[in-house]
Amino acid sequence: MPVNLTEPAVLLPVPGFRVAGVSAGIKARGGADLALIEIAPTATAAAVFTTNRCRAAPVVLARERVAATEPRYLLINSGNANAGTGDAGLQDAAACCQALADLVGCPAAAVLPYSTGVIGERLPVAKLAAALPDAVARLRDDGWHDAARAIMTTDIVLKGCSRGVDLGDASLTVTGIAKGSGMIHPKMATMLAFICVDARLSRHLLAALLKGAVDESFNRITVDGDTSTNDAVTLVASGRTGPEISDPGSPEYLRLQTAVVGVCRELAQAIVRDGEGATKFITLVVEGAASEADAQRVAFRVANSPLVKTACFAGDPNWGRILAAVGSAGVDRLDAAKVGIYLGDVRVVTGGALDAGYREEQGKAAMAADELTIRIDLGEAADARTRVWTCDYSYDYVRINASYRS
Amino acid sequence: MPVNLTEPAVLLPVPGFRVAGVSAGIKARGGADLALIEIAPTATAAAVFTTNRCRAAPVVLARERVAATEPRYLLINSGNANAGTGDAGLQDAAACCQALADLVGCPAAAVLPYSTGVIGERLPVAKLAAALPDAVARLRDDGWHDAARAIMTTDIVLKGCSRGVDLGDASLTVTGIAKGSGMIHPKMATMLAFICVDARLSRHLLAALLKGAVDESFNRITVDGDTSTNDAVTLVASGRTGPEISDPGSPEYLRLQTAVVGVCRELAQAIVRDGEGATKFITLVVEGAASEADAQRVAFRVANSPLVKTACFAGDPNWGRILAAVGSAGVDRLDAAKVGIYLGDVRVVTGGALDAGYREEQGKAAMAADELTIRIDLGEAADARTRVWTCDYSYDYVRINASYRS
Repeated sequence: MPVNLTEPAVLLPVPGFRVAGVSAGIKARGGADLALIEIAPTATAAAVFTTNRCRAAPVVLARERVAATEPRYLLINSGNANAGTGDAGLQDAAACCQALADLVGCPAAAVLPYSTGVIGERLPVAKLAAALPDAVARLRDDGWHDAARAIMTTDIVLKGCSRGVDLGDASLTVTGIAKGSGMIHPKMATMLAFICVDARLSRHLLAALLKGAVDESFNRITVDGDTSTNDAVTLVASGRTGPEISDPGSPEYLRLQTAVVGVCRELAQAIVRDGEGATKFITLVVEGAASEADAQRVAFRVANSPLVKTACFAGDPNWGRILAAVGSAGVDRLDAAKVGIYLGDVRVVTGGALDAGYREEQGKAAMAADELTIRIDLGEAADARTRVWTCDYSYDYVRINASYRS
Repeated sequence: MPVNLTEPAVLLPVPGFRVAGVSAGIKARGGADLALIEIAPTATAAAVFTTNRCRAAPVVLARERVAATEPRYLLINSGNANAGTGDAGLQDAAACCQALADLVGCPAAAVLPYSTGVIGERLPVAKLAAALPDAVARLRDDGWHDAARAIMTTDIVLKGCSRGVDLGDASLTVTGIAKGSGMIHPKMATMLAFICVDARLSRHLLAALLKGAVDESFNRITVDGDTSTNDAVTLVASGRTGPEISDPGSPEYLRLQTAVVGVCRELAQAIVRDGEGATKFITLVVEGAASEADAQRVAFRVANSPLVKTACFAGDPNWGRILAAVGSAGVDRLDAAKVGIYLGDVRVVTGGALDAGYREEQGKAAMAADELTIRIDLGEAADARTRVWTCDYSYDYVRINASYRS
């Protein structure tokens, strides 16, 4: 069951965007599986995509188009990833975009496609195209819940988040939706997320804003260390509200940035809370590192250790497994004799060995919580640090992934 | 349950070695937990140890001693890893060696210590020392089964292997034992293994022989991607039988090498067959790579993917997960459009997409076997290749590791 995660009560409309979610019959088990986001003219967009070398067809197409054109529609389906489908997959993705372009009267290149679901099956283009008139007809300012529901796969809880940005004379709105639960590991982007804002800023600045926000959010999470073929995070600014934001040092930019990072982080954490089979939400803090790269390496090594994850599931303060993972993170300059480990506020390891004051009951109490912070101090003077979020491995992780397709 | 693995019927005595296994009361649940290998004078030894930066105390000590002295005893306990124990752990390991040295009348530096078991608890030195007279009294030429049993932790099946080496005028014997089931990932050595031979060869040549053999065996296996703090593989040559072997190109060396590699590979595969919760033994072949390093990277990425491992458990020919793992292996020059994937003899993916002739029933039939080969062709002209062995992830992997300490 998801860890302290509930559906958002409100997702705010964003001037310049209309959204919808409908059922196109792509998912075998039925339900909403097609989302559409309509973007007013003169918007700017930025996106980051999976670093997986086996990119899905929609990723190839959306990547080309986001760099080249002013986007008008984001067309997203769940139930089929259109990955591992070769040239036929590219043609299928292009055909869906063309069908929408014909329907609404825009260039096909202004439609960015996204897909998520089973890898290796042909996208049912006819079904998808047949559902487009319904999707267009249902476009609404306040359709965010419908869209968020339509992009879910193994997700249990619908994921979305809104923030207001007070600029004094004007107020902006940021609304984002995301999906993801398994095959989650940060390499640029690790799932699908769409964040819309009514601010006015250049594509260049928008790209920088997105990159920074993703580094602080989606690139800090992992469920199982597997990087998807379809991941994408897209940020669109409609340019409808407030002043032109052009200076990344301005108060307007900083306020917008705070809101966008906040939305991205809440969505990223929601993915971990809804991680396949998760029973615990784990924050890994690594500090006292010689560099941030070292800190990240250690944090992700521990976060992806199946032995640490199963110990967390069991509520077992098995710090030896954490220490073993720290030592095997590939940080050559790591000095085991300087390592400290804390479970919650409990100091467990000092100088690479069990702390003299530690009592097993303290560790057990810390591990019993469903929200747990594991803090690792590498003891270097430079004190570089990072923070990463992950979940545990339970029987349900195996159950879900041993029966996903059948 | 272990995959097609049974206890060896016979483990051959090796001239120059006597071995024993006894119970010292270190394991909470009782049973044999102390093994002793006595080495005749004038032997040579070589060892490789874990690359984990948080090395266990016995690893620190054995590493120093194997390089410096002529070893006379290998002293191995299970039930306690003596890792994460700081300076006290080093003193404990040294005290156990000293106790044995006092008992048998040899320098303490001639005793190499090894430990395996729970991390972070002090080694019960008094218990271990008290059992030493019994261990010494039980030393026998044919005590290999007892020793192999005494080093087991979560292992279900005792692991050992013998080979004869015919040199015409003389015949050599190689016998090895090993333990390991979880926290298995190749970084030099990934568990405990001891291989003894009666051949005569220099320490330098022995070290080269061991390194080559480990690269072809223990460094090709993974159960869960976690690298232990205690791993060590030790090869000892008693120098008792046959000609002095000094030329690595000689027929004698090549025959010995074949036997040692064979023993190491059988022991390494036994560890995978007895991997925690394993229901399938999986051979990953990566070929058509631009370099062997690329091939290894892809092989281990796929072998350690929880999604691939759970699909194997389910018998699900979910080639999309294999393709996703291949693409995220960090091989920048990988061309997805050249990738081919085979399940057993069934061609599933050609040119990065589903093969036109593939039928799902064929894939299901291939995945149903308890011994499965996944072959991945990266399509590069250089055709570098590698082979790696792993097992699947089942409910039992979670059960075993969510209850190991309690």
